[in-house]
Amino acid sequence: MKIVVDAMGGDFAPQAVVEGVVMAVNDMDVDVVLVGIEDRIQEELDKHTYPREKIEVVHASEVVNMDEPAITPLRKKRDSSIAQGIKLLKDSQYDAFISAGNTGAVVAASTITLGMLKGVERPGIGLVIPTLKKFSFLIDVGANADPKPNHLFQSALMAEVYAREILGLDNPSVGLLNIGEEATKGTDFIKETHRLMTERLPNFQGNIEASEIFTGRCDCIIADGFVGNVVIKVSESLMEASAALLRREIKKSPVAMFGAALMKSRLQQIKRYADYTEYGGAPLLGVNGIVMISHGRSSPKAVRNAIRAAKREIDHNILNILLKEIGIQ
Amino acid sequence: MKIVVDAMGGDFAPQAVVEGVVMAVNDMDVDVVLVGIEDRIQEELDKHTYPREKIEVVHASEVVNMDEPAITPLRKKRDSSIAQGIKLLKDSQYDAFISAGNTGAVVAASTITLGMLKGVERPGIGLVIPTLKKFSFLIDVGANADPKPNHLFQSALMAEVYAREILGLDNPSVGLLNIGEEATKGTDFIKETHRLMTERLPNFQGNIEASEIFTGRCDCIIADGFVGNVVIKVSESLMEASAALLRREIKKSPVAMFGAALMKSRLQQIKRYADYTEYGGAPLLGVNGIVMISHGRSSPKAVRNAIRAAKREIDHNILNILLKEIGIQ
Repeated sequence: MKIVVDAMGGDFAPQAVVEGVVMAVNDMDVDVVLVGIEDRIQEELDKHTYPREKIEVVHASEVVNMDEPAITPLRKKRDSSIAQGIKLLKDSQYDAFISAGNTGAVVAASTITLGMLKGVERPGIGLVIPTLKKFSFLIDVGANADPKPNHLFQSALMAEVYAREILGLDNPSVGLLNIGEEATKGTDFIKETHRLMTERLPNFQGNIEASEIFTGRCDCIIADGFVGNVVIKVSESLMEASAALLRREIKKSPVAMFGAALMKSRLQQIKRYADYTEYGGAPLLGVNGIVMISHGRSSPKAVRNAIRAAKREIDHNILNILLKEIGIQ
Repeated sequence: MKIVVDAMGGDFAPQAVVEGVVMAVNDMDVDVVLVGIEDRIQEELDKHTYPREKIEVVHASEVVNMDEPAITPLRKKRDSSIAQGIKLLKDSQYDAFISAGNTGAVVAASTITLGMLKGVERPGIGLVIPTLKKFSFLIDVGANADPKPNHLFQSALMAEVYAREILGLDNPSVGLLNIGEEATKGTDFIKETHRLMTERLPNFQGNIEASEIFTGRCDCIIADGFVGNVVIKVSESLMEASAALLRREIKKSPVAMFGAALMKSRLQQIKRYADYTEYGGAPLLGVNGIVMISHGRSSPKAVRNAIRAAKREIDHNILNILLKEIGIQ
């Protein structure tokens, strides 16, 4: 098994990426191809100890920045780590591609270069989110901001497969994110999507309100890429703001500081629980290849965990299952 | 000053509403008209001590339930507390209407019965949200799920007036909620709205990502009613889920329980800070009258605070200012 990793993607690249890759090859049965500026990658690799034969470096001279248009790897920067990495995945029979770089660019390059899975019209980025019960799978968190009802329907089918095969959930339930529970609520787009899912999705539970995302009521939560993206960014920033507020308040009182010290291991447990990087990556579903998008601020651990998540998809042969189940719809 | 309050609105009506109204008349210079089922209101009133002349009861025989269609007070239940309360506001020269009932029904009845402010096409529900700096004003959190760019532009104008006059912010800044900072990001609808605001809104700061809502970067944050509603529901539920998780973790360790006890006053400070009910109500802007929508789960304190917020709008003559400033656009 060989996974291609964008060495230049993310705010802490290439250091964090290389370190995460080294962690991965040291404790998993996986080989990695690091794509990016060779000198800089090698410089980072030299800091670590690892089985040499498990990491290969492929040079790509350009880097797509976080604020560049999605089309960049396809037009201006064809020798970028994103463009070359996805090309490697396509041409060289490698097994997966992982990037913590420009999400739009990864989505665009994957869609065009790899093509879509037969039967799927648009890709969707899924995210495993922690809930009060266990995990749910939210799709789409940012690939397709302006989808058609059929795109959400197909995302729901993919989410079901992912939740069952990768998250191990039996007969996963599906909810459509809406601003009310009744079928009559929401925009025309959402109402049409609701009709389509009611007709064609046996496990469809109807609408789910945003207030229920973290309760674990639905295994799969379907939203357009705009709303899904807002959900994860609000959630992430609110957790950060709460933590900042907590620190600020605690510092006002020595007694509270002592109290916080006593609670430390429990607070860390919560942090770990709510930590998106625990899962490490968000699968880009619908393209003809295993692509994993990591958080821009990915730590080495997040990169390692993204590799673990990609490995799981490969082990479970997710592409073939998706192809089989979506293809017949 | 006389404020009409829907006695039957909210999950804990009429008890919580009546209790909140009694709190308000006891410590503010305000009179209240309670609208709803007279016997039940009187029964609750009898439990309290208050200046009799400050609370009037007007009978309305029906109640709009939380899950009924928005059109209910206009069609099926014309003698509901919502329909009659808004009618009172219109016909009797009272000063404001407050309801913790069915939001859609309050919006529909207000829009049709009161009509729109001259120059405004659609109403928007604004919400004062706590940020790491102070407060921001998010509009629309649920009145208009499928707006046109011009509706968001008008909401931005109203938000500026509200932030300046009611929240006391100098020269409030405006941001458009989007999934990226660049003008090229988002849906066609958002891009067109961005163009319109860039052209016609001097204090427009461009797009703001959901991750920045709680940092306080923009005083006014503009979103369509679908996205805005998702933002507040995700935020609220995430805070609740975090608190539940915290309690669960703390209970696992006596040391942590002791630590939490030492932190209690600080944790309560945060709870107070993040508490939406502190502000008590969300103004429905754009209709020709002062209407305040309270949370369905409003406590007596939330009802009291909603009355205080409505009183502030009346004191600042917000309707006339809105009319003057929006009317000339």
